[in-house]
Amino acid sequence: MVKFLNQDEAINIDVELFNEYKYSVDQLMELAGLSCAVAITKCFPLDQCGSRSTLICCGPGNNGGDGLVCARHLKLFYYNPVVYYPKQTNKELYHNLTHQCKSMNIPILQSLPEPGNFENEYGLIVDALFGFSFKPPIRSDFLPVIDLLKSTSLPIASVDIPSGWNVESGETEEGGIKPELLISLTAPKKCAQSFKGKHHYLGGRFVPPLLAEKYQLNLPKYPGTDCVVSLKN
Amino acid sequence: MVKFLNQDEAINIDVELFNEYKYSVDQLMELAGLSCAVAITKCFPLDQCGSRSTLICCGPGNNGGDGLVCARHLKLFYYNPVVYYPKQTNKELYHNLTHQCKSMNIPILQSLPEPGNFENEYGLIVDALFGFSFKPPIRSDFLPVIDLLKSTSLPIASVDIPSGWNVESGETEEGGIKPELLISLTAPKKCAQSFKGKHHYLGGRFVPPLLAEKYQLNLPKYPGTDCVVSLKN
Repeated sequence: MVKFLNQDEAINIDVELFNEYKYSVDQLMELAGLSCAVAITKCFPLDQCGSRSTLICCGPGNNGGDGLVCARHLKLFYYNPVVYYPKQTNKELYHNLTHQCKSMNIPILQSLPEPGNFENEYGLIVDALFGFSFKPPIRSDFLPVIDLLKSTSLPIASVDIPSGWNVESGETEEGGIKPELLISLTAPKKCAQSFKGKHHYLGGRFVPPLLAEKYQLNLPKYPGTDCVVSLKN
Repeated sequence: MVKFLNQDEAINIDVELFNEYKYSVDQLMELAGLSCAVAITKCFPLDQCGSRSTLICCGPGNNGGDGLVCARHLKLFYYNPVVYYPKQTNKELYHNLTHQCKSMNIPILQSLPEPGNFENEYGLIVDALFGFSFKPPIRSDFLPVIDLLKSTSLPIASVDIPSGWNVESGETEEGGIKPELLISLTAPKKCAQSFKGKHHYLGGRFVPPLLAEKYQLNLPKYPGTDCVVSLKN
């Protein structure tokens, strides 16, 4: 069975990918964001979304970067992504990823859409707020969007971790968001063991076999050239 | 019909992708190399290659970089790539791409394999020597590999341009290499109009619609989430 990583393992694997294996953040984020977009098309096909938009909620770190890449690929897959990116990271990569979205006519919102017509305009929310390095509590800036994710009737696709969940123990006692799709990246984290949603995919088909062996990841075989593989049978 | 670019248009589009649209070389090379690997799996399925290796011939520029990325993805697709990379580029990205290959146990050759058993050991050659910025004559360092590509009975897959061909007018008068697969990246170049091989794919699904419109690229629609589309009907 595939291994579920604790937080330290997830952090160490990430560090090794950059420091030992010499991948750039640009490279791996591109593949990770592409995986997320592909998993979304599998679970929420374009013809079911109609003309409704997909709201991609991006946090301040790498999880948010994955969200920006995902938004761009969704646009290339003919979806209608809208990015909510309240705390933009002041690094060149993030400026560029944001610029790439804008150049594809993807709106970048700094404030949340008004609740009024929200659930008619949007068909899906992508949660790219916090990733495997998240430590509670949630910063006050992000409480409104987490509240929206908790209360919405729209389906949610979470990137790597359902945001706000404890990376290891999962949903918090007071109740957390309930994504319908979870896309684990590189390898699933311990919290994914308590994931009850309909779809669970693994993405980020870039793990060198030696690294997978070192951490005994026991990754499932990706079919053909697919960049995602289902973790539910 | 899709537009076939002249050399200046190809160079200008490349410059715009980096300078105006703010893509990094890492990002686009990752997607381009992935496209090449996927097109190869479609035309030369793994079960037909048996245990024979794929020789990826990498030139000193970006075409060679695409080849290094392609090699890595082929390895992840369970192929057996071997890289021939005689003139390694002294830039960080190229050092890293080479390191990533080595870390996946992909051999990096500095000299060509001996002709003796060559066509039994290998099942396919990937030509990632020269791209759209190539201007003749071929540098003397690369004449032996071009000779090998001209004389081999193995199938060749060329990345973007059949190496040694004139980017606009195509095969040279004295006869050039004859790839079975051509993977045009971003948009096909004029020389592809005289390509007579069996398979022609377009890869590099990252062109912003505004850029496609500006250059009237008239790109075909990529099916589903595929990163390549056939240009032969």
